Parts: sequence; structure tokens; C-alpha cells
Amino acid sequence: MPRWEPQARDRLREAALELFLAHGFDNVTVAQITERAGLTRRTFSRYFADKRDVLFAGSEELPVALADAVGRADPALSPFEAMLSALAEVGDLLANRVQHPAEHSAIVAASPELQERGRTKFAEVTGALAAALEQRGADGATAALLAPVGTAIFRAALDRWARQPGRASLADRIRETAAELAVSMQPVGLSANSGRIPS
Amino acid sequence: MPRWEPQARDRLREAALELFLAHGFDNVTVAQITERAGLTRRTFSRYFADKRDVLFAGSEELPVALADAVGRADPALSPFEAMLSALAEVGDLLANRVQHPAEHSAIVAASPELQERGRTKFAEVTGALAAALEQRGADGATAALLAPVGTAIFRAALDRWARQPGRASLADRIRETAAELAVSMQPVGLSANSGRIPS
Repeated sequence: MPRWEPQARDRLREAALELFLAHGFDNVTVAQITERAGLTRRTFSRYFADKRDVLFAGSEELPVALADAVGRADPALSPFEAMLSALAEVGDLLANRVQHPAEHSAIVAASPELQERGRTKFAEVTGALAAALEQRGADGATAALLAPVGTAIFRAALDRWARQPGRASLADRIRETAAELAVSMQPVGLSANSGRIPS
Repeated sequence: MPRWEPQARDRLREAALELFLAHGFDNVTVAQITERAGLTRRTFSRYFADKRDVLFAGSEELPVALADAVGRADPALSPFEAMLSALAEVGDLLANRVQHPAEHSAIVAASPELQERGRTKFAEVTGALAAALEQRGADGATAALLAPVGTAIFRAALDRWARQPGRASLADRIRETAAELAVSMQPVGLSANSGRIPS
């Protein structure tokens, strides 16, 4: 006799995050999560496949959503700009779904199993970005270079946003991070030279 | 009664690469490798821990070697330039050791197990680069952004070099790849504008 439980998914997620933070991901069972949330195992199974899924639910859509957004980007944009606009667009969709991003990051950082899972997930993102850039006309070598840089920008921006979620949108953090990277890659002396008095 | 076998290591490596390419990494045994090389299991064990080690021997030194090279880089260089010079320096050491890089890449690309191993290995490279950049004075957020970009440049350059090893040194490929990335990140229209006739 299943009952409708108001906000069951959110209650389970909150209980799981609290327990993961307190005891470490490896030391928490689904039984402990459902007990803390005051819900049954059956309710848990309605929303999540396992305890890892509580953290990663929805992330499997990321590669397809990004590839799609790269494909829809303005054809006048360069490959890098198309990728950046896709990351910003999908980033904001993601940001609306992730609750407690800082806690989420801390839990993943503390578990080798979850880090490995994160690496696999981001490798899929990189693969999807590279394929979408090629689809859009970039040559293979360019796509293979730009895609992991896009993923690096996305991850760094996600981390910055997670530390201060109210400060800026994830999309803004992505653009800001990309701009910072571009500046970091300029040769030393270029900015100094630009202020030089012409002879 | 161990005998000295001239070029035993190279013979084992060549036999392994040929078999991996012909049958796939998963379908080759150490016994088949030693048989093809005309050597014993005992000789194999003197050089390699297992068949995976034939492909990755020496790569465990990469993170430390890179961190070291970042630390020794000219203090006048920017963090990105210091990282690039470290990648170029260590890249050339690596290039001297890898034989048959194209075959090596093809074997890894065909095996999910080896790809996963490669991801872990490059995650260690990224971690070492980030730590070395911080050690050198970069702030944490900058180091966390630049390190994976350095790894992306390194991997893309390694791939380009592996396709045509005689064409350019790995160090040159690294610098060329970084320069190409910097250009890719410029806004569209910038290069067109630079040729604009001033009003």
C-alpha cells in the first residue's frame, strides 16, 4: 500500500547528504537513509537505484544535453564559442537541479569511488562535446583539443559556483572562468607591453 | 639458471604490441607474449608486473617528473608558461622512451579497461600539476583550472605526435597545440578586426 509522501525525493536526498557528510559515503547504508528520512525502502526505490544514484541522478543526461546545445548554437560562432554557450546553457539547467552543491562536492572529494565515477562521467561529457564539435564542422584534432578544455572550464566553474551558489549563476561562472583561462594563457609581458608608450 | 637475453625487454614489448594489435588487449595472455618473443615467463617477470605494465611501464613517474619540472621553471614565467615548459621538458623524456606510439594509442583506444587506466593516470598528472602550481604561488582556483588544461594540451599533443612521430618533437607539438588553443579561444572577428583599416 504505497502512500504519497510529500517531498519524499527531497527528504531522502537531504537525509543522504547529511549522513554522507557525517560518516563518509562508504559507511552509509540505504537503510540508514530511509530511517533518517522517516520513509521506507520501497519509497527510496521509487526515486533512486542505489545510494550513489542519490548524488548522480540526472547527470547521465548531461552529455546528450550538451551535444544538443552545441548543435543548436549560432552557426556564426567559433567552435570554442559554440561550446561555451552550450556549457552555459546546460550549466544553468543543471544548477537549478543540484541542491546543496558545496556538500555534494565535499562528499565526492572524500570518496575515491565517487571520484572515479566523476572521472568517467566527465570523460563522457568530453566525448559528447568532441563529437558535437566535429558534427558542427570542426576537424577531429581541434575537437579533441577543445572538448577536454571545455570540460575543465565546466568543472572549475562548477566548483567555484558550488562554493558560493548565491553569488553568480553557473553560466556566469563558466564565462568568467573561460575569460580567466584566456588571460592566463597570454605570454607574460603582453599586458605590460600594451601599456607601453609608443616610441 | 637465468640467462642474459639481449634486448629481452624490447623483444617482449614488440611481441606484446603485435599480439595486442592483432587480437585485442583482453584476448592476449602473458604466455602468448613470451612464446612469441621466444623468452620465458621468468624473463617477462624480470621486466614487467603484468601485461598491462608492458604498455604503462614508466608512466608512474610522470606526475612526479612534471611537478619537479614546474618547480624548477624560471620564476619569471607565468603559471601557464611554467606548466607548458614542464610539459615540453618531460614530454621529450617520455617520447624517447615510447616506441611505436601509434600502435600504443590504437591498443589503448580499443580497450575500455586501458582507457579507464589512462583516465586515472592523467587524473594523477592533473593533480600533480595543480599541486606544483600552488607550490609555485598560484592560488588554488587558478591551479585547479590550469592543471586540467595542461593535461588536455599534453594528451592532444601526444596524440598528434604519435600519428607522425618523425614530423616534430613532442615538445614542439606541445607548444604548437597550446598556441592553437590560445587562438581558438579568441572571439570570432578579432583576427578580422586586426586587419581593419583604421578610420
